[in-house]
Amino acid sequence: MPLIFWLVPVSAALALLFAYYFFRQMMRHPEGTDMMKKIAEHVRKGASAYLRQQYKVVIVVFFIIAVIFSILAYGLGVQNPWVPVAFISGGFFSGLAGFFGMKAATYASARVAHACRTSLDGGLRLAFRSGAVMGLVVVGLVLVDISLWFVILNYFIPETADGYKLMTITAIMLTFGMGASTQALFARVGGGIYTKAADVGADLVGKVEAGIPEDDPRNPATIADNVGDNVGDVAGMGADLFESFAASILATALLGAAAFMGIDPVTGIKYTLDIQTNAVIAPMLIAAVGTLLSIAGVFMVRTKEGATQKQLLHSLGFGVNVSAALIVVFSFLILYYLGLPNYVGIWGSIVIGLLAGIGIGQSTEYFTASAYKPTQRIAESSQTGAATVIINGVGTGLISAAVPLGIIVVAITLAYSFATGFSFHVDYLNFGLYGIGVAAVGMLSTLGITLATDAYGPIADNAGGNAQMCALGAEVRARTDALDALGNTTAATGKGFAIGSAALTALALLASYFEEVRMMYVKFLDMPNELINGIPAIDAAFIDFVYHYQIHLMNPKVIVGIFLGVMSVFLFSGMTMNAVGRAAQKMVDEVRRQFRTIPGIMEGTAEPDYARCVEISTKGAQKEMMLPSLVALLIPVIVGLVFGVAGITGLLIGTISSGFALAIFMANAGGAWDNAKKYVEEGHYGGKGSENHKATVIGDTVGDPFKDTSGPSLNILIKLMVMASVVTVGVAVSYSLL
Amino acid sequence: MPLIFWLVPVSAALALLFAYYFFRQMMRHPEGTDMMKKIAEHVRKGASAYLRQQYKVVIVVFFIIAVIFSILAYGLGVQNPWVPVAFISGGFFSGLAGFFGMKAATYASARVAHACRTSLDGGLRLAFRSGAVMGLVVVGLVLVDISLWFVILNYFIPETADGYKLMTITAIMLTFGMGASTQALFARVGGGIYTKAADVGADLVGKVEAGIPEDDPRNPATIADNVGDNVGDVAGMGADLFESFAASILATALLGAAAFMGIDPVTGIKYTLDIQTNAVIAPMLIAAVGTLLSIAGVFMVRTKEGATQKQLLHSLGFGVNVSAALIVVFSFLILYYLGLPNYVGIWGSIVIGLLAGIGIGQSTEYFTASAYKPTQRIAESSQTGAATVIINGVGTGLISAAVPLGIIVVAITLAYSFATGFSFHVDYLNFGLYGIGVAAVGMLSTLGITLATDAYGPIADNAGGNAQMCALGAEVRARTDALDALGNTTAATGKGFAIGSAALTALALLASYFEEVRMMYVKFLDMPNELINGIPAIDAAFIDFVYHYQIHLMNPKVIVGIFLGVMSVFLFSGMTMNAVGRAAQKMVDEVRRQFRTIPGIMEGTAEPDYARCVEISTKGAQKEMMLPSLVALLIPVIVGLVFGVAGITGLLIGTISSGFALAIFMANAGGAWDNAKKYVEEGHYGGKGSENHKATVIGDTVGDPFKDTSGPSLNILIKLMVMASVVTVGVAVSYSLL
Repeated sequence: MPLIFWLVPVSAALALLFAYYFFRQMMRHPEGTDMMKKIAEHVRKGASAYLRQQYKVVIVVFFIIAVIFSILAYGLGVQNPWVPVAFISGGFFSGLAGFFGMKAATYASARVAHACRTSLDGGLRLAFRSGAVMGLVVVGLVLVDISLWFVILNYFIPETADGYKLMTITAIMLTFGMGASTQALFARVGGGIYTKAADVGADLVGKVEAGIPEDDPRNPATIADNVGDNVGDVAGMGADLFESFAASILATALLGAAAFMGIDPVTGIKYTLDIQTNAVIAPMLIAAVGTLLSIAGVFMVRTKEGATQKQLLHSLGFGVNVSAALIVVFSFLILYYLGLPNYVGIWGSIVIGLLAGIGIGQSTEYFTASAYKPTQRIAESSQTGAATVIINGVGTGLISAAVPLGIIVVAITLAYSFATGFSFHVDYLNFGLYGIGVAAVGMLSTLGITLATDAYGPIADNAGGNAQMCALGAEVRARTDALDALGNTTAATGKGFAIGSAALTALALLASYFEEVRMMYVKFLDMPNELINGIPAIDAAFIDFVYHYQIHLMNPKVIVGIFLGVMSVFLFSGMTMNAVGRAAQKMVDEVRRQFRTIPGIMEGTAEPDYARCVEISTKGAQKEMMLPSLVALLIPVIVGLVFGVAGITGLLIGTISSGFALAIFMANAGGAWDNAKKYVEEGHYGGKGSENHKATVIGDTVGDPFKDTSGPSLNILIKLMVMASVVTVGVAVSYSLL
Repeated sequence: MPLIFWLVPVSAALALLFAYYFFRQMMRHPEGTDMMKKIAEHVRKGASAYLRQQYKVVIVVFFIIAVIFSILAYGLGVQNPWVPVAFISGGFFSGLAGFFGMKAATYASARVAHACRTSLDGGLRLAFRSGAVMGLVVVGLVLVDISLWFVILNYFIPETADGYKLMTITAIMLTFGMGASTQALFARVGGGIYTKAADVGADLVGKVEAGIPEDDPRNPATIADNVGDNVGDVAGMGADLFESFAASILATALLGAAAFMGIDPVTGIKYTLDIQTNAVIAPMLIAAVGTLLSIAGVFMVRTKEGATQKQLLHSLGFGVNVSAALIVVFSFLILYYLGLPNYVGIWGSIVIGLLAGIGIGQSTEYFTASAYKPTQRIAESSQTGAATVIINGVGTGLISAAVPLGIIVVAITLAYSFATGFSFHVDYLNFGLYGIGVAAVGMLSTLGITLATDAYGPIADNAGGNAQMCALGAEVRARTDALDALGNTTAATGKGFAIGSAALTALALLASYFEEVRMMYVKFLDMPNELINGIPAIDAAFIDFVYHYQIHLMNPKVIVGIFLGVMSVFLFSGMTMNAVGRAAQKMVDEVRRQFRTIPGIMEGTAEPDYARCVEISTKGAQKEMMLPSLVALLIPVIVGLVFGVAGITGLLIGTISSGFALAIFMANAGGAWDNAKKYVEEGHYGGKGSENHKATVIGDTVGDPFKDTSGPSLNILIKLMVMASVVTVGVAVSYSLL
């Protein structure tokens, strides 16, 4: 193990230490008045209740899957025996990260509101550092898990002469991502349904029917709504990016092991084990350095009293951008130190990944922020009613999906080209796929601080809610409103980033799927890893491999697979969309019931039954997430069993491409509707209370499940389907029907 | 030329003869009162004005493309010299079909309204037979064009020993489809934008603001709205299916030529030229017999006075179903007579295609008709407002897309399997692709009568409009309403059928793209079409072919292509959606202006300026269709130039799969919203005028561009992109950058 590897566990430890430090620091702040404490306590209890319920379900599902994996591993022998354990560890660490992150967020909200009674900077820093707890816990635990497994497997997996050891180790470690993916499925889909059932339910009865403002304590669903922010936007987002972070590093490690193994197909020189090892640890090191830079970045976020919205955004952006700029420099130094062949090209791929992330963020901002034409046009169309608001939003959302797709296309092409020295010859394929992998790692390298800005949003939102419910002074609420508005901007770009990184991660996973199948095939042929008639065996096997598995586009199984991939995406997002509709309906009924049966509720003399609404959201989310989750988990296995490797590859690429597009469409349309409403509320086209405003409120409500449930759930779907295919690759290879 | 081939021109002639007969028969009916004549004249003039304007644009575009093709053919030599001529002929015949079809429809509406003054059966038969003019002209002209070209090219293209002659002929004929495709692009996109700009504009001001009913003569946009039905639903739909009908036959002919050429890779027996010829003419014969059966079917449609909605639907269905049942029998006889190897299997593929068409129709009906749960649930959700109506509609639409995707997956798999005798070995690939082709032909074989039911819809709709505007008696309007309601049902299933057949046709085209590239490659290698070491050369070249063009899923160019395909779909549909928004806005402004400035318009004492509204819709449609059309035409060429054949194949499959899904989603969501509104209007959940009704009206308005513009335009996109790739295949092969 090279000495530099130990940087990974060290950064992991530092990330967790600083997370703890920020948490303690936050806990030292007072929670404010009794009312504030009470509200915060309600939200905390609700969030814990939800998490407890969710983990109960998760444990059962993990048990079932672990049993299946054990049968595959020990019974049928088509899977590595380490897989069930790695799977569970991934789920465990992801669950732990969600738990800590949400704890911090729910403890922070009242404290942030209280801090805003003194100063804006104090509020911003407290909210942001509380968000950083989530960010650092996520990256820290990912790196802990990776370090642990890498050390353990290095010890247990026997040395081989031809470099298969690292292939085996990285392939096992990848299955740790499957655990994270499964955990994320429940956190994102369940959390997404929860938050929007509560939000839509609260709005439809509270705002529309009863005419009371948002976050009014008289609304029985208001606590559930606030719990939802934590459940969906903190825990759900965290689990989602935990998975992307882990999977991008692990997939790239495997791609590195495959690319720098045995004979170089171009030069004919045999790679040393050192080079292969360095290629494997390179993504880990980049993530580790990015984590250290994230910690530094967190300290750079501060603002001054009376800061404008733009200045606030700049304050957050400063920390993020400095971290990103520095990772460009440091990743070059790391690659130089590791001495990989073509390290300049590989570095180029990392930079491409970073730029793609920024580009997608910019595009998201353009299409969803009210400072730009698209959202303004949606607001303008409110003059002809809600229908044109929806039509315009859908049109804009669809077009907006084209930009990130274009960015990803350019990013893939360039990341691949840089890593191969601009060759598309098949001999260079492995390097190109490694390039795509490091691009994903590059995009996610400073996740620690990016995620802090994401988690900041719901904390500020809840602080605002707390201030509103406790009727704090106008000045305080102006401060919390400023923080909240900032959170809305970071939420939209954060969503774009989450989707973009999910797509790139899924592509890296897909590449590692190819490598795994190929390795199985090469092993199966028992080809010596040497030159055969001057052609490296691994390359000679390539043509044969493509032919054997028929993963070419003339094969109807591939085409059928692609159709099935698109089908899964539409089915899954339709299901999650309808799930919100049904769960929200139950919430509407309950809120109406409470307004009807609890006397004094509207006068503020009686307290509504908040807990009942929390319970309804929790139960609704748990029930409704089962069917879509089953779709996500079963389809890849069934397609593998029927159509084999060819069908699976088609399925995955169909899912990734159309899922990415649909996710961006939904997130951006939702974001644009949200901000079009706010734009009208700022006084344009008649302002608050006008008919135009009502039209944009309808748009916003439609956008809620778009941007917070179905859209983000697709991130999970595209990663999980690839993961499930990677983990069950042996099944598709051994037992396919056609 | 085998004798039986002459059945094709004979059926073509008969189809045209009967179309003329139905037209003359219709023209003999009186048009009714002076008012009825005047309204009909307005609509007729508007439709002609639109068509004239459109053909002007089309002629310019055809000229430009023909010049480009001429350069490719005569200058660069990467295209067959016949291509420019074939291209123009396809466009000409498609345009002619649209012209006749729309003429018939616009002459029919007042006559149908008048016939309804006497009896329901008279109205139905007149409307249906007027629709049959369109249906029979379309299939007749396709078969005329195919017969002509086949005879001409057989005469001019020199005989070769190895069976390349028929490959060349069918490849040239396929480019005739490119002309039809380009024509359809303008008819469908332009017509789609026209009809919905007028409809949405008329509704937003007339129904919502002024509170006057639909088809009220006081609404200045009402004539434009009626013109739109003819322009979009008759001419647009006709051009769309003209293209599918032509392309499915031509692609299958090419696939037949490729499959039954030279040495059979399985048996090693050399195919005779007779067998190859029979495989080529088989799809033409099936289409010809289907056309004869369609004529017979038209005569079977009749009903009795006071028929219920169900009985009316049964009347139409009877003609369609009898034709479909008989084609099953007759296609078997044809294949038996032609003596193709495995004719039973090929027949199975045809039946699969027919069944898939029926299945998709059934699924469309389930998801959009108010007799079933999904639409009823959307209506139910109106109780919580417009937002939940939209959310439910989107959710249901997304899920509904999964069913036809599943049907197509099963259909592809089975059609392929039947034609290969259930082998997925690459040796059988050509037979399997031929199987997919004949499945598409099977689905479309009875297009003559299917299209008659489609064209019937807008004729009945216009008849209803005429009756309403002329304030005919309640009994008459009850009859026209009954016919119109029936038209709504056939419109929804017709859309599903159009999309499904477009997808299957596009897949057949994709297969023929593969064959064309492969043939180029085989020719390029100058491989003798004989056995090499016991392996047929064409099969030995296969592995090499896949390797050479890298059309496997590990190639980043393929993956990038798939992303670009999905991107095109989202971009294109977003553009068409926004186009409707903009064009409708102009209509809204104009209608408001007329209400404001023309005194006496609301009292009915002054006539609104109908012509101005027609002009605005026409101009708006022409202007707005340019950009999306450019996207559709240029993207395949650019991708071919940059990413070569590998990129193109990815692009096409990405476009077809995601375009199909998005088209179904849009069509079904739109249909369901439409019928949910009608369901409420029937008295459920508060009935007409209630708040719930208003919520469903918003849903219906949103659904308008979904189901009548963006959705159907995608049919064109998926076929046109493949067509454009097929026609410019030489460019991608010769000049790609990467």
